[in-house]
Amino acid sequence: MRVNGDLYRTIWLAKDSQAVEIIDQTRLPHEFVTVRLVTVEDAARAIATMQVRGAPLIGVTAAYGMALAMAHDPSDQNLEASYATLIDTRPTAVNLRWALDQMREALAPLETKQRQKVAFDLAANMAEADIDQCRRIGTNGLALIEAAAARKDKGPVNVLTHCNAGWLATVDWGTATAPIYMAFDKGIDIHVWVDETRPRNQGAALTAWELGHHGVAHTIIVDNVGGHLMQRGLVDLCITGSDRTTSRGDVCNKIGTYLKALAAHDNNVPFYVALPGPTIDWTLDDGVSEIPIEQRHGVEVSEISGRTADGRIDTISIVAPGSPVANYAFDVTPARLVTGLITERGLCPASAEGLRNLYPQEAKT
Amino acid sequence: MRVNGDLYRTIWLAKDSQAVEIIDQTRLPHEFVTVRLVTVEDAARAIATMQVRGAPLIGVTAAYGMALAMAHDPSDQNLEASYATLIDTRPTAVNLRWALDQMREALAPLETKQRQKVAFDLAANMAEADIDQCRRIGTNGLALIEAAAARKDKGPVNVLTHCNAGWLATVDWGTATAPIYMAFDKGIDIHVWVDETRPRNQGAALTAWELGHHGVAHTIIVDNVGGHLMQRGLVDLCITGSDRTTSRGDVCNKIGTYLKALAAHDNNVPFYVALPGPTIDWTLDDGVSEIPIEQRHGVEVSEISGRTADGRIDTISIVAPGSPVANYAFDVTPARLVTGLITERGLCPASAEGLRNLYPQEAKT
Repeated sequence: MRVNGDLYRTIWLAKDSQAVEIIDQTRLPHEFVTVRLVTVEDAARAIATMQVRGAPLIGVTAAYGMALAMAHDPSDQNLEASYATLIDTRPTAVNLRWALDQMREALAPLETKQRQKVAFDLAANMAEADIDQCRRIGTNGLALIEAAAARKDKGPVNVLTHCNAGWLATVDWGTATAPIYMAFDKGIDIHVWVDETRPRNQGAALTAWELGHHGVAHTIIVDNVGGHLMQRGLVDLCITGSDRTTSRGDVCNKIGTYLKALAAHDNNVPFYVALPGPTIDWTLDDGVSEIPIEQRHGVEVSEISGRTADGRIDTISIVAPGSPVANYAFDVTPARLVTGLITERGLCPASAEGLRNLYPQEAKT
Repeated sequence: MRVNGDLYRTIWLAKDSQAVEIIDQTRLPHEFVTVRLVTVEDAARAIATMQVRGAPLIGVTAAYGMALAMAHDPSDQNLEASYATLIDTRPTAVNLRWALDQMREALAPLETKQRQKVAFDLAANMAEADIDQCRRIGTNGLALIEAAAARKDKGPVNVLTHCNAGWLATVDWGTATAPIYMAFDKGIDIHVWVDETRPRNQGAALTAWELGHHGVAHTIIVDNVGGHLMQRGLVDLCITGSDRTTSRGDVCNKIGTYLKALAAHDNNVPFYVALPGPTIDWTLDDGVSEIPIEQRHGVEVSEISGRTADGRIDTISIVAPGSPVANYAFDVTPARLVTGLITERGLCPASAEGLRNLYPQEAKT
């Protein structure tokens, strides 16, 4: 998508092919900075510190991390060590394990001298596959926005989204945003309510930033507002992403998603979740009882960074001094609250049957 | 309640009786500063800029504002002008109008030379009545916490609260916090989940600050977390305040309250609302359709203040540059989601019948 008029992806091979480059998303929206990743440790640090975030992008970055590792030392020992380094960076995203398993399974049987090239090719293929998936999610979700537009007498279709399931969370297009960008490009009058998404503010910082660069009308709101908007008829549909979806359609996504799904259900607002197939965890059924929820450092809650009046980036403390803080990063939205899933293979109900119909092979395993 | 070991109220007559003094709550939790209000304009500014906030404290501050006006010019003209100045400061809080109507009705029939003394006496009586109301709310709500403690095998009673319905929102004790302070003082093992409460962060800044000074165990969470905690059994009951309650028990409170009530309902967690009688608006029935919701300036969302690493208070921008912002300050929780109301006259169901039983005289008017 466009940044200051130029086309970017979120991760790409450097011109010298000796590294990959990423957008440092911790510097957004205030500064647009790209970072060069040369080693597997660079890739692990980029994931752990959330310079890259979003389940699909985490997977592709981990794949490139394995490729960088193979470029430096293609031994069996380093293959395993690099896998271990990367798998430890984030506990919740199932894409991370999926991508690393793909890489290890493909690379382990090869002679060491073949591994570098194959690893880079595989990572590049994963990136292309992600873009293709997002494009298909966009096409499938576009139908929902077109239907909402057809139901309206006047005014824009109002979509509420939470966190950043945008192109910055993928390689391009995004998941929840792909239908939005496609509707916008098609000339549909669309407006997006962007949840701020505390504590890391990925909505206000990232989703608003990318929608703004693309020209999509949007309004930032704090996370507390969505229920009120739905009560007053100001939301036509919700679309969020998913970090992990169980085989029956429970959705683990950024903390607070569950609250918006409850509000949508209470006000008969359709609540859709956009996700690529690899984020489905077929081994899990009941998300609330089975998915471990990452707890991150409290400093993400107690401190916040932003731009000062004189243009510097500074960090300030915003809580009562000495008060304890807890930082749960995700929650689980039960399938009963989800109107439907938007996947690269089509729309389906959030149910075991719905997912099985779209992914018969995967559901059997 | 105690601040650094000394007993304070949130508003008091200055020693020279020429002014009233308040705690500047916009400086909390980083700095403890008191402010002297000399004129009606000082009082109006303190309300409008939220140096004082919380429905009960706004009412008492407005009453003292009328008294300050009468001290300077007790004419009929100034009585009306001061009423107009104060009523315009905040659109939602029903206490504001209630307090000002009480003052005008009492003062208008008097000779001008009597007005100053009567006005100060009336304002002081309102402050004492507020403290008495809060103490009774505390006693009535304490029974709920004792019952929750009795149901638990081990661990503290976990109470979730939203915004600041604490002693800082009243003259003393608070509304939602009064039962908490009484339970704590009685030696009950209690822990409070404190919602941050964006955009103004009154939970993280004020509720956490006052609980901490009193010694009550608590943990700050972002507003997105409460639903997850309730899913996992980590909340025993919710207690919030109310800025305005309709005759059938719909509750208008800080934006985001509705989302917590939905989560409580979905997880069978009791959801109580603590309120003094004057916050009931007997003229209203359906809160969602009848209560106007204040929209405040977007800068409260896009900028945030806090303490820098080197100890200064600074303000930073935290949203994508150029992105529009909306700032709805309250929402309405329908009575069907409220387990019960905690009033100074006792507990009651959130229903027309429940409120009528406790307030037979008021309900008839």
